[in-house]
Amino acid sequence: MKKHNFNSGPSILPQEVLQQASEAVLDFNGIGLSILEIGHRTSWFVEVINEARALVKELMQLGEDYDVLFLQGGATTQFMQVPLNLLDKDAAAAYCVNGIWGDKAVKEAKIFGNVNVVSSTKDKNHSYIQKDFSVPSDNVYLHYTSNNTVEGTQWHTTPNTNLPLIADMSSDIFSRPVDFSKHSLIYAGAQKNAGAAGVTIVVVKKDILGKTNRNISPIMDYRKHIEADALLNTPPVFAVYVSILTLRWIKKEGGLVEMEKRAKERADLLYSTLDSLPVFAPIVAKKDRSLMNATFTTHNKELENLFLEECKQQGMIGVKGHRSVGGLRVSMYNAMPISSVQALVDLMIDFNRRNG
Amino acid sequence: MKKHNFNSGPSILPQEVLQQASEAVLDFNGIGLSILEIGHRTSWFVEVINEARALVKELMQLGEDYDVLFLQGGATTQFMQVPLNLLDKDAAAAYCVNGIWGDKAVKEAKIFGNVNVVSSTKDKNHSYIQKDFSVPSDNVYLHYTSNNTVEGTQWHTTPNTNLPLIADMSSDIFSRPVDFSKHSLIYAGAQKNAGAAGVTIVVVKKDILGKTNRNISPIMDYRKHIEADALLNTPPVFAVYVSILTLRWIKKEGGLVEMEKRAKERADLLYSTLDSLPVFAPIVAKKDRSLMNATFTTHNKELENLFLEECKQQGMIGVKGHRSVGGLRVSMYNAMPISSVQALVDLMIDFNRRNG
Ligand SMILES: Cc1ncc(COP(=O)(O)O)c(C=O)c1O
Ligand SMILES: Cc1ncc(COP(=O)(O)O)c(C=O)c1O
Ligand SMILES: [Mg+2]
Ligand SMILES: [Mg+2]
Ligand SMILES: [Mg+2]
Ligand SMILES: [Mg+2]
Repeated sequence: MKKHNFNSGPSILPQEVLQQASEAVLDFNGIGLSILEIGHRTSWFVEVINEARALVKELMQLGEDYDVLFLQGGATTQFMQVPLNLLDKDAAAAYCVNGIWGDKAVKEAKIFGNVNVVSSTKDKNHSYIQKDFSVPSDNVYLHYTSNNTVEGTQWHTTPNTNLPLIADMSSDIFSRPVDFSKHSLIYAGAQKNAGAAGVTIVVVKKDILGKTNRNISPIMDYRKHIEADALLNTPPVFAVYVSILTLRWIKKEGGLVEMEKRAKERADLLYSTLDSLPVFAPIVAKKDRSLMNATFTTHNKELENLFLEECKQQGMIGVKGHRSVGGLRVSMYNAMPISSVQALVDLMIDFNRRNG
Repeated sequence: MKKHNFNSGPSILPQEVLQQASEAVLDFNGIGLSILEIGHRTSWFVEVINEARALVKELMQLGEDYDVLFLQGGATTQFMQVPLNLLDKDAAAAYCVNGIWGDKAVKEAKIFGNVNVVSSTKDKNHSYIQKDFSVPSDNVYLHYTSNNTVEGTQWHTTPNTNLPLIADMSSDIFSRPVDFSKHSLIYAGAQKNAGAAGVTIVVVKKDILGKTNRNISPIMDYRKHIEADALLNTPPVFAVYVSILTLRWIKKEGGLVEMEKRAKERADLLYSTLDSLPVFAPIVAKKDRSLMNATFTTHNKELENLFLEECKQQGMIGVKGHRSVGGLRVSMYNAMPISSVQALVDLMIDFNRRNG
């Protein structure tokens, strides 16, 4: 039985992407070699990485002033690599902290320079987004997390700032049109909406690079990766390939506009159910709710466990909240069919009737 | 037609590993989910990573004083991460440089502290290994490249030293029994003998950690990865899985003793042919020749191109030398059947007859 996969990441991928990826592991494009066996400097792979880089730009409608990299190390490594490349020891960067990922980004940045937490929503357990705050004009960038995977909040507008804007879009990249060109750097682990675990997409506006005095380790230097056409060292070949399959799928299905439409349908169905049923209560302020990750609670811990048990029985996985916050969480990424959300909603209605 | 895959990396993998990996992309162990869709903190994946860590220790016959990590970023990231974790600004580390990879390791290390190149074989284009050299006793470690993928040399004995010994084993890990316990840190990109591109195996003796004064970025700190049981952030799930399949295959086939036996058979066949045929000439001093990567030349550039063309026609790929050194190179990793080497040797004999 195919499961209903509400995992927060690694998470659901389109079935046709899985099919194509599985075939490529046996024979890549009929060349008589597995995708796992081809050199990264062969024309076979160079075509893959070039198409991947071009597709990212196309979906984001970005021009020549941007470059796209497919790096390793996860978004967590970007928490480090961003300040390493951009933040001098004596300089300061501004961070919006809306949850545990923003918090970790701050911890890494502090190793490299000064950090201004210009906005924190910790006062209310990060159950909302604070959109008004001021940023010292001498800060070198403003960093925010566009979608808070753990807490279930999302920025529905891009932060307004004159500073170079940097976004951790790990959990909502390619799920909606955004004015990407307002950003100077965007990064995302691929394992939600953009492929499998093991590759991190970094989109960087080239004019922000090369401005620190730091002697940056070559392998950590964005410029070195750009100069090497994204082949500075062996890239995670298979993970890049899964990303390209996923990006092709997004484009074919109608691009980011269509992804957003589907995300809204799924989220509307789920949140309206949560709002209407007495047993369930969404955690996040209505206007800041994430279209990707819905967090909610039940009356008490026993009901929660009972509900989780029933989900499990019906093949619905990943419904448990993140270990740092508890409660319940349902993740609904691009590849999630509305039928899975409908099945969950049906269970919720029935569960509410029996336990209300 | 299945090709003869002499790629230097990413490179040939056992057919049954490819088969199992391909199936897992559709359905992992019959759970109704792809290996690409499972959370890294589920018991499904925790079992995988734990088995992978245990298998590495078992194959290397290492005890409790060692830990095993599956990181991202390739061996090149280890060039940086090793000195970041171990080398203070005012301290010095010793490096043997036997080729381009050792050279890159030195360049990264210089960012973090002082480097003593205690042995360099650059004088003869790295066509041999220098085994006698002295190392200042106050150096914090000695680093060497056990197999020089590009130049085709290999250390057939472990360097003798009182210092903590660190090895880049990217291109010969798991190809032979080594006294691994003489090492304090071993690392290897998996894409040769240990799996697919996208994961780097790091084996570390815990007593060398925690001795620098540097404020290490958490995601780059080996200790943080160990404390988090190798799940500090999302690991490259699929690449780890391909590694475990590869390690299981090595164990089942007879372990490192058997891998070495096969490697010697392949290398003997190839080198004896190269030595005997006038048209071909191995580059490396006999006693230092690599069992994994054989480098050689032909009389002239035209013959070289002609030979490459004939290899291509017969489905033999990856025979071209590294872009930095030219010439010809044949890589013969664990999964390479002797029949592929025999096919190449047959072509060489025939080529020599026609062009000698
Ligand atoms: C918003 C966000 N940022 C960062 C991360 C960390 O990503 P990784 O585990 O790939 O380092 C995650 C992971 O879930 C995330 O959701
Ligand atoms: C001995 C050795 N060290 C380091 C590397 C670099 O590995 P990566 O490309 O994974 O960073 C290679 C790659 O071929 C290698 O053969
Ligand atoms: Mg956050
Ligand atoms: Mg309600
Ligand atoms: Mg070397
Ligand atoms: Mg000869």
